Amino acid sequence: MKFLKTIRVEELKQILDEIPRITLEEETIDLDLAFGRVISKNVVSAIDVPHFRKSRMDGYAVVAEDTFTADENNIISLELIETIQAGDKPEKEIKKGQCSYVATGAAIPEGANGVVMVEFTEKHDKTIDISQAITPDTYIVKVGHDVAKGGTIVPKKSMITLPTIGILASCGIEQVKVYKKPSVSLISTGNELVPLDVESLEMGKIYDVNSHILKKAIENAGCEVNFFGIIKDDLESLKNAFNKALSSGDIIILSGGTSKGEGDLGPQILESHEGLEIFIHGVRIKPGKPLIFAKINSKNIFILPGYPTSALSCYYVFIENFLRRMSGLPPKEKDSKEFELAERIYSTVGRHQFKPIKIKEIDGVKKIAPIQTGSEAISTLFYADGYIEIDELESIIEKGETRTVYFF
Amino acid sequence: MKFLKTIRVEELKQILDEIPRITLEEETIDLDLAFGRVISKNVVSAIDVPHFRKSRMDGYAVVAEDTFTADENNIISLELIETIQAGDKPEKEIKKGQCSYVATGAAIPEGANGVVMVEFTEKHDKTIDISQAITPDTYIVKVGHDVAKGGTIVPKKSMITLPTIGILASCGIEQVKVYKKPSVSLISTGNELVPLDVESLEMGKIYDVNSHILKKAIENAGCEVNFFGIIKDDLESLKNAFNKALSSGDIIILSGGTSKGEGDLGPQILESHEGLEIFIHGVRIKPGKPLIFAKINSKNIFILPGYPTSALSCYYVFIENFLRRMSGLPPKEKDSKEFELAERIYSTVGRHQFKPIKIKEIDGVKKIAPIQTGSEAISTLFYADGYIEIDELESIIEKGETRTVYFF
Repeated sequence: MKFLKTIRVEELKQILDEIPRITLEEETIDLDLAFGRVISKNVVSAIDVPHFRKSRMDGYAVVAEDTFTADENNIISLELIETIQAGDKPEKEIKKGQCSYVATGAAIPEGANGVVMVEFTEKHDKTIDISQAITPDTYIVKVGHDVAKGGTIVPKKSMITLPTIGILASCGIEQVKVYKKPSVSLISTGNELVPLDVESLEMGKIYDVNSHILKKAIENAGCEVNFFGIIKDDLESLKNAFNKALSSGDIIILSGGTSKGEGDLGPQILESHEGLEIFIHGVRIKPGKPLIFAKINSKNIFILPGYPTSALSCYYVFIENFLRRMSGLPPKEKDSKEFELAERIYSTVGRHQFKPIKIKEIDGVKKIAPIQTGSEAISTLFYADGYIEIDELESIIEKGETRTVYFF
Repeated sequence: MKFLKTIRVEELKQILDEIPRITLEEETIDLDLAFGRVISKNVVSAIDVPHFRKSRMDGYAVVAEDTFTADENNIISLELIETIQAGDKPEKEIKKGQCSYVATGAAIPEGANGVVMVEFTEKHDKTIDISQAITPDTYIVKVGHDVAKGGTIVPKKSMITLPTIGILASCGIEQVKVYKKPSVSLISTGNELVPLDVESLEMGKIYDVNSHILKKAIENAGCEVNFFGIIKDDLESLKNAFNKALSSGDIIILSGGTSKGEGDLGPQILESHEGLEIFIHGVRIKPGKPLIFAKINSKNIFILPGYPTSALSCYYVFIENFLRRMSGLPPKEKDSKEFELAERIYSTVGRHQFKPIKIKEIDGVKKIAPIQTGSEAISTLFYADGYIEIDELESIIEKGETRTVYFF
């Protein structure tokens, strides 16, 4: 065991930031399923986009030189030889004295080197009058203007957004190579926990909340979740479940079992493994002091407090961006804004507190109000709009002081 | 046809805001699939949470009156009659002079009305020494403290977040009633468009991009998408596809077909329907002028420009929050920040422009830089960080001026 101590919030964040990314395998998936995934290999286009010269406007494709002397007082008349709509293949080459109609997006016929907008023309039976001079290349989108054949269009490690889907589709790319999602093994422990399908609760029992909120939270961070069930608080059952979880997952998240009155099961289970490094056991925060972060060889292990509000707070503050980094996703920047306190808030000295708060409008001004329930109540987070940070050394924040609210 | 005109951006936004929400049916789904969905019926808890009195601390459940005289100089000794861990059912009632060990979260035995923290006790063989006085209710979480039986816990029209999943799970609720997703029929039109599975492109043809980006964008706004394929630009084919789309969807989105050189197919298709109201035909914006919004009875119809950059810009500015409102989701607030222009940007007078821009760091300062390609290139959006709005009456914004960037 390397070290074992209660540390400050910033120290834990730094330790987590320095953990190297796990090595993820690749998989090939359909473009339509790729939103939010991370490209594992530079994508190169096999084609130019567009792969033909294209008109930017509705107009007439001409030999630009034919128009050089044209203006309102010197109309030039050209022979109309073809009408080319978007999607049509031009059949005829333009020679001096000739033109073809081209719609926006239509292919430019051979021989033409410019387009006169329809607004500066007049159509007769078989001829077109031109009243504007154009320079070569006017209103022509060149081959490869958007994407050049052979060039890297989307570099490795990019997250796929809507415009990424757009540019890949424009190159005719139907499938993409992406990183597999990190696999997270999730365990809920506690003799008091029962699954939702149990109809009536006995005295002392409560429904398991953490597996439901953590499962979705972990998926939202780009990971795949395997749930190993609700495990009893006894060393044998927990060891068995933990060993299975360890062999199948890159990351193991266990909620509960950190701070039991009669013995700390989490650390006992970890201790039996070779290659164990416990980086943190306890962080000076509230809610959620009994957080453990450890590694067994390349596997990352988090043991979270059992109370759902504590577990989810720890998840938001420490684990969410750790998982996003492992998945290859950009960190989530917390939306934040400053507000005044509507009333005094108390905190425990020696604990860096993430206090869930509400925003309350008082005489038309939005202010920070505390929530009366604590980490024992899941409704605390339900009614919270966000949280404020309270430093280890503060015991009171006075009414009227200004704090940054981080929104959920 | 009611009216048909080119309008200003703000007018269109207002028209869209005033369209009544479509009536959505309900469906019952598993809690684990409910994240991001919208509750269709007030959820009432059938149980109190907790449904038993619970200890907030590791300690001893006592009759508070027994401790009233206790302090460091006056140790009180109580008989230990039971050890109650979280999840255990207490077997014995506490009488005066007795106590039971209770772990955090464990049920409080009958007869007890307070908990003395373990820190203020000393354990002997069968007795516990107490060195602190407590008042009644100390460290006891009352029945229904978190959720009261019979009360509405999650009101109708709430979007399901992680804390909502938590509070529902804590009440043992496995399934929830939610609104069905609005159904959007999507059509891509254009003779030039081919699907991604076509291996090699003929002259004049391009891959269909809009169906891929719009499909995912619409799903992200909480809707279900039925794609009706890539339809040729002829009145008969388009009429057939449109009629199918109209009968199966609440909202119909058609991209392309708004501004063809040789005739505007979109309006022609709409015109053959009874109950048609065209609210907008053309908005004074760039990119994406040829936008149509119409209704046929209760169905909402958008016809978007064919260029992917124009289609997606129109979607972001007008349609995204319209669809979110129809789904029951809160509007997406665009992340925005002010920056200085790194160089002069030109615009077309008479068009309200949403100009995709990049953020470029120049001498350590982040500034707004234009993107050289236009709406004909999908790479424009791919390289953009966001957009700025340029008013109808502006033709130039000078280097050094400050603008709000709306991030994608």
